[in-house]
Amino acid sequence: MVNKDTHSHHISQQFNEDLDEVKKQLLEMGGQVENQINDAMEALVEADSELAETVMSNDDQINRMEVSIDEDCARILARRQPAASDLRLVIAVSKANNDLERIGDETKRIARLALQLLENGQSPRGYVEVRHITGLVREMLHNALDAFARLDVDMALKVARADHNVDMEYTTAMRELITFMMEDPRSISRVINVIWALRSLERVGDHARNIAEHVIYLVKGKDVRHVSYEQMERKAKAD
Amino acid sequence: MVNKDTHSHHISQQFNEDLDEVKKQLLEMGGQVENQINDAMEALVEADSELAETVMSNDDQINRMEVSIDEDCARILARRQPAASDLRLVIAVSKANNDLERIGDETKRIARLALQLLENGQSPRGYVEVRHITGLVREMLHNALDAFARLDVDMALKVARADHNVDMEYTTAMRELITFMMEDPRSISRVINVIWALRSLERVGDHARNIAEHVIYLVKGKDVRHVSYEQMERKAKAD
Repeated sequence: MVNKDTHSHHISQQFNEDLDEVKKQLLEMGGQVENQINDAMEALVEADSELAETVMSNDDQINRMEVSIDEDCARILARRQPAASDLRLVIAVSKANNDLERIGDETKRIARLALQLLENGQSPRGYVEVRHITGLVREMLHNALDAFARLDVDMALKVARADHNVDMEYTTAMRELITFMMEDPRSISRVINVIWALRSLERVGDHARNIAEHVIYLVKGKDVRHVSYEQMERKAKAD
Repeated sequence: MVNKDTHSHHISQQFNEDLDEVKKQLLEMGGQVENQINDAMEALVEADSELAETVMSNDDQINRMEVSIDEDCARILARRQPAASDLRLVIAVSKANNDLERIGDETKRIARLALQLLENGQSPRGYVEVRHITGLVREMLHNALDAFARLDVDMALKVARADHNVDMEYTTAMRELITFMMEDPRSISRVINVIWALRSLERVGDHARNIAEHVIYLVKGKDVRHVSYEQMERKAKAD
């Protein structure tokens, strides 16, 4: 027996499936990007040209995922006309999608730097810092994706706090590397590649923080970009 | 006399006004960001701390514009449920909004570097390149916004071609500055600030190119991200 209620029930079921599916795709893409961060770092630190090439070619796949998720979001907006929290989910997925793709770009940059270092010879400094900051930003991204999966505002706030820590570690590492270059100018063209890699990692942290902000928007309906951590926390905890 | 037709006419008129208004806001924000690029460069090259402070405080205003445009886009999606080219306009505005905000961030970074150079003393090199590349990326942004305003695909393609030129100029400038630092290691901590500024300008070019890609999506309904210039041109010219 098919009546109007059954029909609209089917529609809303299909709608929920569409939303679940696009969220699932985003989290899958997130998992791949997480791996890219680690692989790019290993390629740089271990001077592994094969791994660097793999990271660079995997980035094409991540770009295709971005395009596909954006297409799905546009389709959901056009056909399902979501409102309230459903609309926020589509908007948050679309924005997080963009951040993930940009993290992918940074990992590709790091892989390219790994290849340049293989040509020019290894940098005499900076690998410890690269490894350390990679660990920090990878954990940030992992937690941001977890927060997205579980709609966990506290976890999102934790990511925002971690970003401050990354910025401090980055600044310290940068200062040390600049001092080192002044003492050993012949190393400049090699050390500068490690400096670029650190810069990319610091950007990865920024994007992970952005994703955490999208989670707070999704759950609380509040835009917490461009505010201090204290304001963010107040907005995220308010009802 | 108010009948059903008059009512739906009013609704569709209001809808068009909403779309026009959000597009107008985006272009206004674009104009402000354009000025920020120039002011940040002048602050750096002319060692003007007052101008640097102005750029940094103007960035707050640009951030507020981003939040406001995003709110308007979400409201249009929820209330007006746009489809086809109207939906593409909302999506393109939302994406270009994000790129403009990130250009704003880069100009703020350049202003901060200007202040650091005022503390550490001017860099002995790199200002000519900063001025030159600023001119190129500012023109790219101007043309990308023009293409958005007029739905001009040819202009959007011109922006994409210009980005290639910026990347080459950037690479050349970078190589020269690295060579200079090797010859004069005491200058490193000052030259490196100019290197960061060039990096930021190169990113501005990337974002202007992104905006041009959004224009092609808006006009042609085709996603031209992550493809070569030749493929982009083919997709943009096809019917």
